[in-house]
Formats: sequence, structure tokens, C-alpha cells
Amino acid sequence: MNRDIHKIVSQMTLEEKANLCSGLDVWHLKGVERLGIPSIMVANGPNGLNKQAAAGEGINMNAGIPSTCFPTAAGLASTWNRDLIREVGVALGEVCQAENVAVLLGPGANIKRSPLGGRNFEYFSEDPYLSSEIAASHIQGVQSQGVGTSLKHFAANNQEHHRMSYDAIIDERTLREIYLASFEGAVKKGQPWTLMTAYNKINGSYASQNEHLLGDVLRNEWGFEGLIVSDWGAVDQIVDSLAGGLELEMPGNSLSAGKILHAVNHEKLSEDVLDVAVERMLQLIFMHLDNKKENASFDSEQHHQLARRVASESMVLLKNEDGLLPLDKNRKVAIIGALAEKPKYQGSGSAFVVPTRVEIPLDEIKQLAANPNFITYAPGYALDTEDVDQGLVEEAKLAAQSAEITVIFAGLPDGFESELADRAHLKLPENQRQLIEAVSSVQGNVVVVLMNGSALEMPWAPSVGAIVETYLAGQAVGSAIAHVLFGESNPSGKLAETFPLKLEDNPSYLNFPGEGDRVEYKEGIFVGYRYYDKKKMQTLFPFGHGLSYTTFAYSNLIISRSELMDTETVDVQVTLTNTGTRAGKETVQLYVKDIESSVSRPDKELKEFAKVELQPGEQTTVSFTLDKRAFAYYNVALKDWHVESGEFEIMIGGSSRAIALQAKLQVTSTVAVPQTFTRNSLLGDLMRNPIAAPMMQALTQNFQASMGISDGDEKMAKIMQAALVSMPLRNLVTFSQGAFSDEMVEHLLLQLNAQN
Amino acid sequence: MNRDIHKIVSQMTLEEKANLCSGLDVWHLKGVERLGIPSIMVANGPNGLNKQAAAGEGINMNAGIPSTCFPTAAGLASTWNRDLIREVGVALGEVCQAENVAVLLGPGANIKRSPLGGRNFEYFSEDPYLSSEIAASHIQGVQSQGVGTSLKHFAANNQEHHRMSYDAIIDERTLREIYLASFEGAVKKGQPWTLMTAYNKINGSYASQNEHLLGDVLRNEWGFEGLIVSDWGAVDQIVDSLAGGLELEMPGNSLSAGKILHAVNHEKLSEDVLDVAVERMLQLIFMHLDNKKENASFDSEQHHQLARRVASESMVLLKNEDGLLPLDKNRKVAIIGALAEKPKYQGSGSAFVVPTRVEIPLDEIKQLAANPNFITYAPGYALDTEDVDQGLVEEAKLAAQSAEITVIFAGLPDGFESELADRAHLKLPENQRQLIEAVSSVQGNVVVVLMNGSALEMPWAPSVGAIVETYLAGQAVGSAIAHVLFGESNPSGKLAETFPLKLEDNPSYLNFPGEGDRVEYKEGIFVGYRYYDKKKMQTLFPFGHGLSYTTFAYSNLIISRSELMDTETVDVQVTLTNTGTRAGKETVQLYVKDIESSVSRPDKELKEFAKVELQPGEQTTVSFTLDKRAFAYYNVALKDWHVESGEFEIMIGGSSRAIALQAKLQVTSTVAVPQTFTRNSLLGDLMRNPIAAPMMQALTQNFQASMGISDGDEKMAKIMQAALVSMPLRNLVTFSQGAFSDEMVEHLLLQLNAQN
Repeated sequence: MNRDIHKIVSQMTLEEKANLCSGLDVWHLKGVERLGIPSIMVANGPNGLNKQAAAGEGINMNAGIPSTCFPTAAGLASTWNRDLIREVGVALGEVCQAENVAVLLGPGANIKRSPLGGRNFEYFSEDPYLSSEIAASHIQGVQSQGVGTSLKHFAANNQEHHRMSYDAIIDERTLREIYLASFEGAVKKGQPWTLMTAYNKINGSYASQNEHLLGDVLRNEWGFEGLIVSDWGAVDQIVDSLAGGLELEMPGNSLSAGKILHAVNHEKLSEDVLDVAVERMLQLIFMHLDNKKENASFDSEQHHQLARRVASESMVLLKNEDGLLPLDKNRKVAIIGALAEKPKYQGSGSAFVVPTRVEIPLDEIKQLAANPNFITYAPGYALDTEDVDQGLVEEAKLAAQSAEITVIFAGLPDGFESELADRAHLKLPENQRQLIEAVSSVQGNVVVVLMNGSALEMPWAPSVGAIVETYLAGQAVGSAIAHVLFGESNPSGKLAETFPLKLEDNPSYLNFPGEGDRVEYKEGIFVGYRYYDKKKMQTLFPFGHGLSYTTFAYSNLIISRSELMDTETVDVQVTLTNTGTRAGKETVQLYVKDIESSVSRPDKELKEFAKVELQPGEQTTVSFTLDKRAFAYYNVALKDWHVESGEFEIMIGGSSRAIALQAKLQVTSTVAVPQTFTRNSLLGDLMRNPIAAPMMQALTQNFQASMGISDGDEKMAKIMQAALVSMPLRNLVTFSQGAFSDEMVEHLLLQLNAQN
Repeated sequence: MNRDIHKIVSQMTLEEKANLCSGLDVWHLKGVERLGIPSIMVANGPNGLNKQAAAGEGINMNAGIPSTCFPTAAGLASTWNRDLIREVGVALGEVCQAENVAVLLGPGANIKRSPLGGRNFEYFSEDPYLSSEIAASHIQGVQSQGVGTSLKHFAANNQEHHRMSYDAIIDERTLREIYLASFEGAVKKGQPWTLMTAYNKINGSYASQNEHLLGDVLRNEWGFEGLIVSDWGAVDQIVDSLAGGLELEMPGNSLSAGKILHAVNHEKLSEDVLDVAVERMLQLIFMHLDNKKENASFDSEQHHQLARRVASESMVLLKNEDGLLPLDKNRKVAIIGALAEKPKYQGSGSAFVVPTRVEIPLDEIKQLAANPNFITYAPGYALDTEDVDQGLVEEAKLAAQSAEITVIFAGLPDGFESELADRAHLKLPENQRQLIEAVSSVQGNVVVVLMNGSALEMPWAPSVGAIVETYLAGQAVGSAIAHVLFGESNPSGKLAETFPLKLEDNPSYLNFPGEGDRVEYKEGIFVGYRYYDKKKMQTLFPFGHGLSYTTFAYSNLIISRSELMDTETVDVQVTLTNTGTRAGKETVQLYVKDIESSVSRPDKELKEFAKVELQPGEQTTVSFTLDKRAFAYYNVALKDWHVESGEFEIMIGGSSRAIALQAKLQVTSTVAVPQTFTRNSLLGDLMRNPIAAPMMQALTQNFQASMGISDGDEKMAKIMQAALVSMPLRNLVTFSQGAFSDEMVEHLLLQLNAQN
């Protein structure tokens, strides 16, 4: 419906406007009754809907209505499947329509800086491109149903320790290339109805009142048109937040309207700023009203089927020696581990979803086996303790010994990963670790099925034959696992994060979770695989890794041009063949490397990917188009993305460390980086500058002469040359004993800088 | 002689004073002829004297008079022998007296931040305590002869790339604990006559005009009383330098006096500042005059003997499998490698010394062998190329095959490490690497003797039986090596730096040598072993490592108290026994660990060491006394060293990774770190504060009630508790729906902060 929002705002009193900038209660926004503008509702998620049955009574995560619980973000990202994530979004949108929820509070696009981060399971990846692509798909799906999203938590919410007070100290290039880039694509491609600010500060300013992030970057550069809402309780000073670019404080705070009024009345806050905020509030309310479907409903069973499909596709086959998987339905299998009976399939905190039902892996496995009696079970450990129960271990060993294959279920029980607390380590509970060691000492064919939200250390990995990472797979966890184990589904998940050999290997290790409220991101752009690659470190499993029951071959890499300007694009084609005997999906990953650069750059960066399904023997061509951004770094001086002219390498493969094909091309910049010379500029830099070079040639010869170096003294001249290139211009004066003057240097600088 | 320096200064004209602050030429300071104050000379070194025969003619490193070339700093530090380094200093002082040199320009106490640093061979260690102790001993030795030293390069001169223009960005704690600490002990214990400022900037200000470093730290905190001189050409603006704390610009700059005059006349520079500088100049000149020994001479042969003793003791036996070393004088030994004939025994640049003679390892080995014919020789490679000469390799293999044991000489030829250029990698030249592999494939008993100034990668290490690191051992290199190989000397050197497995392992790797002129020391305090320990990384050879031909046992660790205040000291005693069959020396190393700390601290830090000589079977007690500093970190808020109360561990052993004995003690701080609470302080922090805790108890109970949480709801209360500890005080207002007001929070803060 067409409305004149400006006009409505002009009809509102200052009190009404001030009122609108803080919520009605915990889950409702305020309306304006006098003008017939209703209160609308927002609700948590986002891998399901957590709508509190009795809203307004304070936050209670566990009081939601039942809703299909999809895999958490960690699992969603592992699918690397944009279309599938869009389908999930559509389902979530359907639920919200039926429940009259205007905005689903998600997805989260923060970077997994450390595997310890308590909310990592709610986030997609350590890589900003993958994260932003999955987030954009999620948003597109939900919003296609006329329901808003809230892209969160903007930005740098990378830990739970001191989460409401820490100050993330991040240099601008790192912010742009890593922490903001993860949101940038999601904002531009997804245009979420709302964006939620983080609790923490970034470079000294709270995310909820950060003019640089909210104003310069989000609004002006990225063109974000939605509403900016605070995380629940993230506002420090509401007036500063409004001035900084925030429009809505949540939950409702009965004191805020008064503060806003006071500020406007005392010219501490411009009424124009308030008006813009109110316009955006109204715009959101009207978007909800205009897109509201009456009597909306959805097919709960179909959502469950989708949850199963997504879960299967999110599982990552980390290891599979000698084709131990898939299991033969006619063999005797021992299922060990309490998690097979009581699966961990989601995290806790705001992302908690009350499921419509939960599939039990043990039951589903029995059902798929040729005969349920082929399956034996032993719990092996208790879930509410780390203490080893030797009786359970012995029972498990017996079960393993009398079976042909053993499948151990392991993972992180409740309390190991959650909002509000970072993990203390990357280990499995001690009783599970010992169980795996005990069982694999008596049984040669051990499969480990993992249930956890983020990377684990696996000192026991060499002693088991196969490992399946299921992450937190949602309510269809049981059948999804059974299907993968028996080969009904061919696993195609790929890691969206590196699994390091040990916690200490992580790039943030020395600076996580910071000291007091100060967290310095000293690893800079070298997050995740960017670090492990650059430092040439072994990993447990690299970024992008994931096996299949079939095999794929890469061939015939073709680039449409070997030279381009940074204003042009290049097409990349590669042929993928299913060389195995089963249908399967592969994620083709494209990485780019800047071969030589004056700034520090990663060894490779993910710039494109595509998920492809192929029948046995089938072959297809995968195409990508790369533009400037694929080759650029963020140049702080230019305040823009910049390509340094030179040679780049395009790498294609099935993981960041399984590069199958490479091609080189030349990219030429159309942008000059301005250079200003001073008396402390190095002669070497001057010599490399096309304008300065000829002047320097003559100058340095004169200088050598003034130093008493004869033309014939080659050894001395060579040393002098090395000294000269790293000598500041000013030293022509210092070392020439009067032959050069400060005035001559000043004159030279005037000439040089005028010509630049 | 007693002089009234104030009075002399008062007799000088402004011109005369301004004149004095810049040198006469390259190696001479100015005098004041009118007042009979002579010009004095300074000269390079410091592992020998490099006095330019024809001074004043510009810098020419290679034109010095001959002088005994001692091992370079890297080797000196490897002795871990304060007394021995003092002896070297005495010898150097004798030479300077004889040559009428007032100040020997050294020692260098910069930290080896990266093994790539071009001047690492001129510096002592990656550890500030070891570096400062060795530097202090060096200074004490030289100055005991009435000759000045110039402790250099203050500070953070850790690379050659852009050495005259880079800006070292280092946080204050890291500066204090690592980069300045390395100078601090040397200044306090050595009181060098002069200190030389570095070329680079530190945190935006040139070292030569850095008020914080020169004024606050060096003069005011450390009580430095000597003269501050610039590195040669390090002054940017002489007036700013004088204002910043520098007193002497070198080399002489004919324009500087005029600039100083102009500044004083135009009140841009206080004449008082100039007067202080002139006083210090005069003080130095008079110290020289008063300590000058007429007709001083020295025993060149005795200096050479000392050089041999130091060289032997500096060599580090890195590996010695199955007692391959020492060599039996009656066995047939193949000596391979051109460096055996043309040894690398010093670096190049300002530290270059024209030796009085050079011993050739091959000759000395032949001389010590029972029969010179037992020794065969093959060059194996050429020194002026990295290209493999297959003929030389085959010849070397033949020589190796027909001998019982093979000793390969390898190392970095000229051009691989030098002032003016950082190293490009940590590898041996390709032809040497291949030679070692080729020879060790045909000969089971291979010893590698290394000649290089800093850490090397050794992918070939597993295939050789023994490795001797000789560093750059000075002119007695030949006999020192022969003595060590045949066991005439029992090696006792210990690494003063970590040898990493590969370059990329180094903590500075991602930030070395910086971008443009900006070098961020993002690894912070985690330099050298502090990093490898914390990140639990394997190393090739750890800090402090070095084997002997005998063995030592540590026992009976006794600490004089298990609890102390930070104003008290603790005595530590340990028994060391020579459990082998040869006399030998061991360096007992004492490390301290803060077991729990609110700030990030290393796993261990070297706090004391002692070198001890023991006959076979002999036993001795080694004693140390530790004070506050051994347990303290630099607290930036307090601007002081601070001990956080708690448990500490004392570790004693023969290397940083061979800790033999441990003891725990409790240290209690007598200093309170002031704490100010704000509305954004976390409830958790308030709850931990003894004053705030009782108030918080009542507040949070009220708050839970206001949130509608009943006392009985244990699960919800637990979640709420987790949320509360990381919630800012302000959120009592936000979340309590009016039960708390901003005014109540303000009132509470007033109470809390008043009581602190």
C-alpha cells in the first residue's frame, strides 16, 4: 500500500515520536494507537522460531511455542548450498507468517574468530565471503515470505566473555576485509528489513552508537535501507545511540522516551535524526502489515523433511579410511554413546528452539538396518558428568568386540557451548575421550559421529577409521545420521571453519578473550585458514574439507582472459566429473592469491563457490565471474578496495588444501595511490618513483662523489648503494658535509610533490 | 681531576656551545680550542676495535687498524658467562687505551625479534634479561679500563629493512618487558658512558628525539648519567633532538650549530637544555682525559688466547647422538666444506673488525690429530655461489666414504647476513644443503659445524649425528673448533635464541618487516621462547639448549620461604652434580611462571642464571636471590612493575625445555591497583570487589524478583546468574522495567568509587 510516511511523521507529537524508539516490552515494538499504527512482534530464532508463548513477561528462552528446529548456523554453512539455505528461509518465513511474527531475529553473520566463541554454533564461518553468501540466502528466503530478518550482531561479536562491555580493537583493514565483509554481502544481496547491533564496543565506541559503522559504512557505503535495532540491552545511552545511527532500543525501556524528549528539547539531539528513526520504524511496521498473509499456515511435516535434507547435507565426512563408510545394512553394528539416545542437536541461549519432535539416532539406525537385531547399543558414558564410568566402558568394549563395526557417538553435552559462556577448551569430555580410546583399542573398525557446534581437538583421530561431523543438526538429526551412515544420503558437507590440531594453534589464541574489557585483534586479517596457510601450519582438517562416498575430478580450467583492468571482469570455467560409482554433490571452491604485494596478504582467499550434484560418470562445467573485489584488498589510505597491479593466481579445488587446478592472470589497477614525499622518504622509494627516479640518479652520483668514493671502487660502491636505498632524503644533507643543503631538499620535495 | 663543569659552560659562548652538539667529523667529537678542551675520538666495534686509520675521510668499514676479533655478540651471549664477557671487555678497553679511543661504540642490546634481522649477530639474545646481563658485563669490562662504551641502539632496532625510517609500533607493556628491559639492566648495572639512539621511530617519534624513551625512561626512571649520542645519521631535526633529550649528533653536520643557534635565539629551544647537553659533552671529554693511560699497551697474543677461550665456550653443541663427538684423534676424519679453509668468523657492516690473524679450522684440526694424514679434505661447494657443483659433491662423497667420520663445515657466506640487509630466509645456501644430504646418504657418522650469526632451518638435522653451532666465532675460530671437536675443550655454550623449525613459526612472521614504514609488534611480549612455549610449539632447538661431553644432575631445590610480600626477597638454592666423566661447565637457568594472572603472561621467563664449572663427580650449590622484579609484569595503569598476588612457580634446569626441578611459592602484592566503576562496569566485577559485593548481593536479588523469577526456579536462576555476571550495571535499569533508575545507579557508583 502506498503511504506518505513523511506525512504521518509530521502528524505525530514529539512525545509519540520519542516513544516509538524504544520497544513496548521484550518482544513487541510500540505502535501509535491514536494513528492506528499497531504494535508488531519480533521473535528469536533463527534456525527455527522461538516465539515466547507469554510474551512481555521477561525473557525466557525455554517458553517458546514448538517450531521445526533446523540445523544451527554452523551446520547450515557446511552445506555451502545457497539454494538449500533459501529453502530453509522460506520455511522459517512461513512459520513466522502463521505466528504473526514480523521479524525473525537472525541470521548471525559474525566471524568465528576463535573456536572457543560460545555462540560459534550460531554463526556461519571463519570466512567472510562464505558467511555473507549463506546469510544473504537465509535472508532472501525468509523475506520472500513477507517476513523480516534481523542480520546480527553488527559487528565483531566474537566472544561471550565480557560480551556486553568488551572493546574490540580492530584495525580498519581487518574490519573491512574480515569482520564487516561478512555482513557486507548479506546487506547488499539480502537487504534485511532490520539489522541488530552487537553488545560490544568496536574501537572505543559501542556498536549501538558507532557512527562509523552505522553511518559511514552501513548506511552511506552499503546503502542499507532497513531499521537498526539494538541487541537486547545493548544500549548504553539512548540519545547517543540515536545520534550514532540506531533507531530502536530493545527491549522496551520506560525511561528512554523521557531522555529523548529532554535531549531534543535541549538541542542535544536534532529532531531530524529522531524523524528519520521514526520513519524507519513506520516503514518496518507497514512492511509487515503490507506483507501479512491472513490465515497463513504451513506444512509441519514438510518442514521436518526439509530439516532432514538440510541436516544430511550439512554433515561433514571428515575421515573415511578404506571405505569404512557407508555401513552395510547386513552387518552387525555396535552403537556406543549416550548421545545416540539423547542427541545434541542444538545449542542454548537465544537460539534455542522448542522442536516439534526429535528423532533419535539409535532408533533411526535400527530402522534402516536390514534387521534391528544387527544393532546393539551401549551408552558408554553419562552425559551429566565427565567422570569415567568404568562399568559403562567395559560394557561398551564388549559390545564393540562382538560387532563387526562400531559407531561411537560423541560430542559436547549441554553446558559445553552456549550463549553467555565461551568454551574453556576444544576437547571432548574426558569420559568420551577415554571411551573412544578404549573402544578403538579393541575394535579395528570404529566410526565416530560428532555432535558439537564448533571445532574440536581429536588426539584420537588416528586410531579411528571414519569421522562424521554432524554439528548441531536440528530435530531431524536421527534420520539424517542414519541416512549418512548407511549411504542413503551421500554426505556433501564441507567445513566452513578450520579444525586446528590444538587450541593454541588458533590465530587469536594469545589475544582471546582479552584483558579486562580490551580485546585486541592482533592477528589482523589472518583469521582461520588465512593464518594456517600463511604460517604453513598443519591442521587437523582444513577449511573447505569434506569427503564423499564418490570421487570427483577437476579438469580443464579456462580463464576468459589473462590480462584485465580492475574495471573489467574475468570468467572462470572448470570441468567437474563424478569419477566414482555413486551420485554425489561437490562444492567447487575458487580461491585467489595475490602473488606479489606491497601489503601483507593471505596465501589464498575464497572468492567463489558452487555446489554441484552429479550422477556417476556425469560431467559438468562450472562457471564463475570475478570482478575487482576478488583481487582487491581494503586500502586504508584510499578508503576503498584496491587492486595492486600485478600477477594473481586463481586456484580451484575441493578444499582450501586440495587445490586441483591453478591459473595465473595479470590485473592492472586504474587507480593511483597518492604518494607524498618528505625529507624522511627513503632514497630507494624515490628511485622507484617514475617522476623522482631521474632526479635521484644525478643526486646520488653527486653524493657518492661528495663522500669521496671513486667510480672504480666497486665493493665500496656496492655497500654504498645498499646504504643509499634505505637512507632518508635528509641524509643527503647530513652525510655530504655541506655539499647539500636543507633548502635543496625542500626544493626537490616541492618539485616532486607538485608533479604527483 | 676536579673541575667545575658549570663554570666552564658559563664561560662558553652560545656559538661554542651550539657547536659542541655535533661531531667534528665522522669519528671525532669537537673540542673547544679556546678553552683547551680537546677533540676526542670514538670508534666502531665492539667485538674488536675498528678504528679507521684515516679518520675523517668518510665511513669506510674496511680501513680499520688490525685488532683482535672476538666472537660477535651472538657468540658472546651463548657463553652465558658474565665473568668471561667482562674479560673480553677488559681486553677491548686495553686496545682502546693504546689507540687513544675514548669510546668504543657498543655493545648492542637489541632484542632478536626475528631471526631474519640483518644485525642479529651483533645482538645478544631474544631474552631481555640475558641480553642485559651480558651487555652489563661487557660495559663493566671495557669501562674498567677507563674507556667508554656506547650502549646501542636504543631502542627497537630490530630490522634492517627501512631501518632509518620505520616506525616500531609497540605497546607500552611490551616495550618495558622486552625491548627496553634489554637495555634497562645494562644501564643500571653498567652505567655506560654513552648511549646511542637507534635510527628508527618508536610509536611515532624518532628514537633520537623521543622524549618518552630518553627523558621519562632513560634519565628519570633508570638514572642514566652518561651522554646520549645519535647513531650515525639518525638525527632528523637537531633542535627537536636536543629538546627530546639527545646531546650529540654524529657524524658532524656543518649545518647543525646554526640551527641550534637560531632556535635558542628565537626561543624555540631553551638555553638550559643546551647547557645540560654541553655539560654532558664536557663530562665525557673529561672522563676520557682523566682516565687516559699514557703509553698504554696490551699483549696481542694474550688477547688472541682469550679470543680462543671465549670462542670455545661460545660454541653450542646442538646435537650429539651416540657420543659421536668428541672425535678420537686416531681416527680417519674427512673434513668437508670450503668454510673449513675460509672460515666465516664475523659479520659485516659497522661491526667489521680487521683481525690481527685468522686461524684456519682445517689447519688446526690437522695439528690436533694424532697424524695430519688422518685428515682428508674436500671443499664440497664454492662460497661465491649457491649453485651445486656436482664434481665437488662427488669428490666430497668419496672423501666421506673413505673416512671413519665426516665433519661438514656449513654456514652463511658473506652477503647472507650483514648490516643494511635482513636475511631473506633461514636456509643454508642450496649447494651446502644438498652437500649435507649427499654426504650423509653415504656416511653414517656425520658432524656438521655451523658458522652463522643467527638461527637456521635444518631440514637435514635428523640425518646427521652431531651439530656444533659456532656462530661467528672471531679470529681464533680455527683452534676453538678443533679443540671442541677433539674434546680439548668441553663445549658449554647455550642458545641465547630459539631455533624454530621453520621461519613461519617465528612470532613476528606476519608482521616483519612491516608495511611501508610501519612495523607493528603485534606479537607483543610473546617474543622468542615466550611465544613457542605459550603456543605449545615444537622447536628445532629451544632457548637455553646446549649439550656437553659430560652430564649434569639437578637436585635438592630449596627456597628460603614459600610466602613473601613483594617487598621481600626469596633465596633459591639448587645442587648441581657433574655425573659424567669429564670436567665441564653448565649454565643453571632459573625461570619464573605466574600460575594465574588477570593479564596475559608467558609460561616462563628467565630471571636468573649461573655458569658453573665442575670436575667429574663434583657437586656444588648454586644460589640465587629473587626480588619483586622476578615476579612482576609492567602494569601500564600503575606505570610501574607490579606483582599480582598469587601463586608462582620457580623452575630450574639446563634449558627452557629441560626443567629439572620446580617449586611453588605465594607472592603477595603490597600495591593496590586502583579500580573505578562506571555504569558499564560488569556486575561480575562488582560482585568480586570486596566493597561492592554486599551491595550487589541485595541488588541482584531485587533484580531477579523484578524480572519475575521465583526463588524456586533453579534452572532459570542459573541462566540468570550467568547473564548477570557479564551484564553492565546500567542494565539493572534497562531490564528492570522501572524498578531501578539511572539515579540509583549513579548513587551507587558514587558510594563505590568514594570507598575505593
